[in-house]
Amino acid sequence: MTAASATPTALRAFRIALIQLAVSSNKTANLTRARTSILAAAQQGANVVVLPECFNSPYGTQHFAAYAEDVPSGESCQALAAAAKDAGVYLVGGSIPERANEGKFFNTCTVWSPEGTLLDIHRKAHLFDIDVPGKITFKESLVLSPGPKITTVPTPLGVLGIAICYDIRFPELSLAMSRAGADILIFPGAFNMTTGPLHWEILARARAVDNQCYVALCSPARDEGAGYVAYGHSMVVDPRGTVVVDAGAGEGTVVADVDPEVVSAFREQIPVRSQKRWDLYNDVVKAVRE
Amino acid sequence: MTAASATPTALRAFRIALIQLAVSSNKTANLTRARTSILAAAQQGANVVVLPECFNSPYGTQHFAAYAEDVPSGESCQALAAAAKDAGVYLVGGSIPERANEGKFFNTCTVWSPEGTLLDIHRKAHLFDIDVPGKITFKESLVLSPGPKITTVPTPLGVLGIAICYDIRFPELSLAMSRAGADILIFPGAFNMTTGPLHWEILARARAVDNQCYVALCSPARDEGAGYVAYGHSMVVDPRGTVVVDAGAGEGTVVADVDPEVVSAFREQIPVRSQKRWDLYNDVVKAVRE
Repeated sequence: MTAASATPTALRAFRIALIQLAVSSNKTANLTRARTSILAAAQQGANVVVLPECFNSPYGTQHFAAYAEDVPSGESCQALAAAAKDAGVYLVGGSIPERANEGKFFNTCTVWSPEGTLLDIHRKAHLFDIDVPGKITFKESLVLSPGPKITTVPTPLGVLGIAICYDIRFPELSLAMSRAGADILIFPGAFNMTTGPLHWEILARARAVDNQCYVALCSPARDEGAGYVAYGHSMVVDPRGTVVVDAGAGEGTVVADVDPEVVSAFREQIPVRSQKRWDLYNDVVKAVRE
Repeated sequence: MTAASATPTALRAFRIALIQLAVSSNKTANLTRARTSILAAAQQGANVVVLPECFNSPYGTQHFAAYAEDVPSGESCQALAAAAKDAGVYLVGGSIPERANEGKFFNTCTVWSPEGTLLDIHRKAHLFDIDVPGKITFKESLVLSPGPKITTVPTPLGVLGIAICYDIRFPELSLAMSRAGADILIFPGAFNMTTGPLHWEILARARAVDNQCYVALCSPARDEGAGYVAYGHSMVVDPRGTVVVDAGAGEGTVVADVDPEVVSAFREQIPVRSQKRWDLYNDVVKAVRE
């Protein structure tokens, strides 16, 4: 149970696009803008396209209920399904506020196949409850419920490990995704102007180096007029911890090529994945896959 | 067993000194130079003094047996005991090649009280076996045996988590030390001119941010003429992941003040230590303390 083997990556070469969307309070406009960007990313050769956290809604506890939808029957999911199919890409649909049973709300990422079928969902597991006096106070748990699982999504390109924003602060979650077979870790996220400069890049690089895998973070574009100002800087980091591409602050799409040779070469050179001392510490992963 | 509570730090304010020693092939000269630096660090107000990995010997599998000593009866340990007592400091004695029972050798750190008593030892748990073609190939396991335990050393200043160099690449070990109560993580280490620029700082910062604690790395000074060229850059990183002090490449001692207020403030602001999702992943620590 705690001794999942360090399996070699089955990752294939693909191109990933991160859509650093300018998110407004107009849901229809957000969905239209996302669709346009997804189709454009496919034109750039992207096989996997990622949207940011809360791509259809302003980010804020006061907005979640108003923008929330059923998953996958709501209009945002239907728009994502159509965009994935029309673009012919694997689509990591950022996140939307989800209205679920028993009056619960989740911060939910949906993952779509190039045929427009829903492959899996990840509900943010670690809610963003922080209080940096004079800087940023936020309490997602006032409205949201925490997700019930770790999410790894097998595709022919490799296994996508999916988590959302604050989830990245928990090294155990990324280790567990990787131990459960994730070949790349993808985090729609929306750090702010306090936590962004402080930790966005270091966390992305740390998860990449520790798991020797590609890591992709996708943020909304920075909007200084918004109630919650996202940091931006959507980025892809390679398994050596090098930032391959950084979108800066404004709206735009960045692409990077995921190279399985880079992964396997680095894992052979510094073989930490097979040098773990399970006699000294526990494996974080509870099971290889549910 | 897997649910050790996130105890608040009992850390007290203290000053830590990292001695970036110029290590030569002359053991007596190394011991003398270390002693002089330890006494000088105490004069600078240091309460905890750290030496680098392999401070009494060149680093290399071909040197370990020749420089190895019994612990704690050998001359290097006796010199450390005397220096700790004469300086009145807690001394993290870098590491030395240890000659142990059954013909085994370890890469061993000894930790001394200001009274000159041996508090604990850490034997490097993860041996440095890497192969970066054309850059650096090293195989400690040709000569050394891996250490049998995780090491956390209670002192009146706080609990010192001790590990050595390559041990830092394993996030589980640092998490386990922290979960077992370590207030600061201290790594004597000797990264080289390939792995140093690539990962020395990112690993130090990652361990600090993930565990919200101070992290100290102490390297030998860089000697371009040595068989193994150490990177240098001994550093202290604060719990927010900021590099507080960096020794650069040459010989020298750097000091930093460890402030428990910084630790507790940051842990209150972004309370990840109490937000773990133990229902989703296992706690790495096997027991709070052996």
